[in-house]
Amino acid sequence: MELISSFDSLIEQSIPGEHLDEVKKYIYGWIPRSLQLPENCESTADTLGVELKAYKFNAEIEQLRSPRLVRVAVVQNASPLAPSDPVDQQRLALHKRISSITSLASKAGVNIICFQETWHMPFAFATRERLPWTEFAESAENGPTIKLCQELASRHNLVIISPILERDENHGDIIWNSAVVISQHGKIIGKTRKNHIPRVGDFNESTYYMEGNLGHPVFETSYGRIAVNICYGRHHPLNWLMYEINGAEIVFNPNATVTGLSEHLWPIEGRCAAIANSYFTCVTNRVGTEIFPNEFTSGNGLPGHKDFGHFYGSAYITGPNGKRTPCLSRTKDGLLIAEIDLNVCRQVKDTWGFKMTQRLDYYAKTLTEASKPDYNQQIIKEN
Amino acid sequence: MELISSFDSLIEQSIPGEHLDEVKKYIYGWIPRSLQLPENCESTADTLGVELKAYKFNAEIEQLRSPRLVRVAVVQNASPLAPSDPVDQQRLALHKRISSITSLASKAGVNIICFQETWHMPFAFATRERLPWTEFAESAENGPTIKLCQELASRHNLVIISPILERDENHGDIIWNSAVVISQHGKIIGKTRKNHIPRVGDFNESTYYMEGNLGHPVFETSYGRIAVNICYGRHHPLNWLMYEINGAEIVFNPNATVTGLSEHLWPIEGRCAAIANSYFTCVTNRVGTEIFPNEFTSGNGLPGHKDFGHFYGSAYITGPNGKRTPCLSRTKDGLLIAEIDLNVCRQVKDTWGFKMTQRLDYYAKTLTEASKPDYNQQIIKEN
Repeated sequence: MELISSFDSLIEQSIPGEHLDEVKKYIYGWIPRSLQLPENCESTADTLGVELKAYKFNAEIEQLRSPRLVRVAVVQNASPLAPSDPVDQQRLALHKRISSITSLASKAGVNIICFQETWHMPFAFATRERLPWTEFAESAENGPTIKLCQELASRHNLVIISPILERDENHGDIIWNSAVVISQHGKIIGKTRKNHIPRVGDFNESTYYMEGNLGHPVFETSYGRIAVNICYGRHHPLNWLMYEINGAEIVFNPNATVTGLSEHLWPIEGRCAAIANSYFTCVTNRVGTEIFPNEFTSGNGLPGHKDFGHFYGSAYITGPNGKRTPCLSRTKDGLLIAEIDLNVCRQVKDTWGFKMTQRLDYYAKTLTEASKPDYNQQIIKEN
Repeated sequence: MELISSFDSLIEQSIPGEHLDEVKKYIYGWIPRSLQLPENCESTADTLGVELKAYKFNAEIEQLRSPRLVRVAVVQNASPLAPSDPVDQQRLALHKRISSITSLASKAGVNIICFQETWHMPFAFATRERLPWTEFAESAENGPTIKLCQELASRHNLVIISPILERDENHGDIIWNSAVVISQHGKIIGKTRKNHIPRVGDFNESTYYMEGNLGHPVFETSYGRIAVNICYGRHHPLNWLMYEINGAEIVFNPNATVTGLSEHLWPIEGRCAAIANSYFTCVTNRVGTEIFPNEFTSGNGLPGHKDFGHFYGSAYITGPNGKRTPCLSRTKDGLLIAEIDLNVCRQVKDTWGFKMTQRLDYYAKTLTEASKPDYNQQIIKEN
């Protein structure tokens, strides 16, 4: 059976016209407003085979602060070659693909762009094999993928978030799941690491790398304070919270996740994080099915097989008030752009007061107690 | 324009048949399975003018634990009388309405039932007026509403969660927003209080009562360990988390919230809490529009008016794996029932590992630092 290319589109197309606006307000929190892009963007996207969508989030006008308009973007894409192809060729094909998409983003006036999790390689962590997959790991300071990103960032004058498999040569050659933030001048601002590592389904990632040790850094860029919550970290509200505490206005969430396992959670978690923390979240995921040379099992009693399932794309962006864009396609490479006004973050905090009312000092004490091995749960029984 | 009675139904009815199952799996996380109820339930519900829906969540079969099947229910309802009617008559009408619905729940084999927030009164907290509204406040130990609930619980052999406006006569006559848990023997197991108080839109609740001081109690009942997160607490992930830490398997979330303000957040937050904490959440909300005698303003520049807006009902129940029921109606009184197997909670924890991977001790330390007045945010700038 053919995959449904977009649930959001299917629903929109099915709803009777007289109800469509109300349904959109319910599903998205607003009637999503398109952003007009320069004329040649659409044709370039068509030539590339890339779905291009752009939206504009509004803010209230303030008297003392000017609008702080930023164009953010996330990319979702399949690997052009197969996992069985040579490592250098796979990486080169991905470098070319992402270079083309970044050039398109530049034409569209994007200021910050985020690629998907470990975008320079297939998502090989189901296999539990080391070579050749660990060969893709590279330095976050001077590996070939980061060098390419530095060149792209300065050429196109945009901030790049490049999630990579990092080889930490200065610390025992260990591997991390990381993201490097590069300024529009091509300089590395810093890096962050995946804080929560899955052990679920085919996601045997803790076989390759451990929980990140860099805390919850927020990167101050010319276009706002940004953070990166990598993949499985999206299931962890405390992780999202710490990025807000450290001042993030936009949190990017690059993923690799498949149908069956997580798709019904997908439009919930990244969006709920934006609501709870009064910041923008931009989530993305890879696309397509990657077939590996050797079979592996999934710990579910089923026979060995060679693929993870279908990576369902479906990138979307949510504002601090819970308004979200429709998701990109489940099946096609795509570039999702939003023009946002960062002033909204503080406006929503002032309106809803979630931070003022969160009682952080109370929970700091409570969680400190709760994390002790001899913690007594607060349980009340009938006398 | 007539209100859409249910977005979930409208979407289901609009999707072409060949795609309906896939869309349901996407929206609900499963194809919701109806629970067969005794024959006379439907006719009783019709007579009462109550929408009755019942679903059955499945679990895996284990070898060492028998299924722990429980029928949980939430009620949503309008006040039969107007806020301008005498206080005792309004309360009496609500007592009668809830008695009828509880009797229906009993016929349907319900084990635990939760009513909506301060169900024994109109939601008068927009007015900022004291009398007559504070007259509704009553003792959580021996007020008329609690006495009624004790009688209903023992007569119908079910656990009742009764959210009330509490008058704390032993502590300076102050008022709390509370919920009382009553066993199937009619005994009060204990009470809990709303931990986070809104100051948003018309919700001037902190004019009447303060943040709860009873922690995050979990009540051990014959039908599982339950907790109550009242209304605005649903926006606070740390609040949800503490109920899990204290052992909750089901968290009830009674609300009073209106269209325009929160409806696009409604299917997100209560569901995300179930996902993040591997427990069941059962959320409900009142129904209809309550018109108050005197006008009040909403702090939004608009003229005075006499109502809060439309309380949109839309009760729903979510399982620990993010599967949810369709929402009840936005416009009609309703009783939503789910038969659940509490074994699912641990099964989902073992599968997804969110608790194992949450790094609680790490966040306890981090939040302790973050809650200090001189905390330095972890911000990285370009050199």
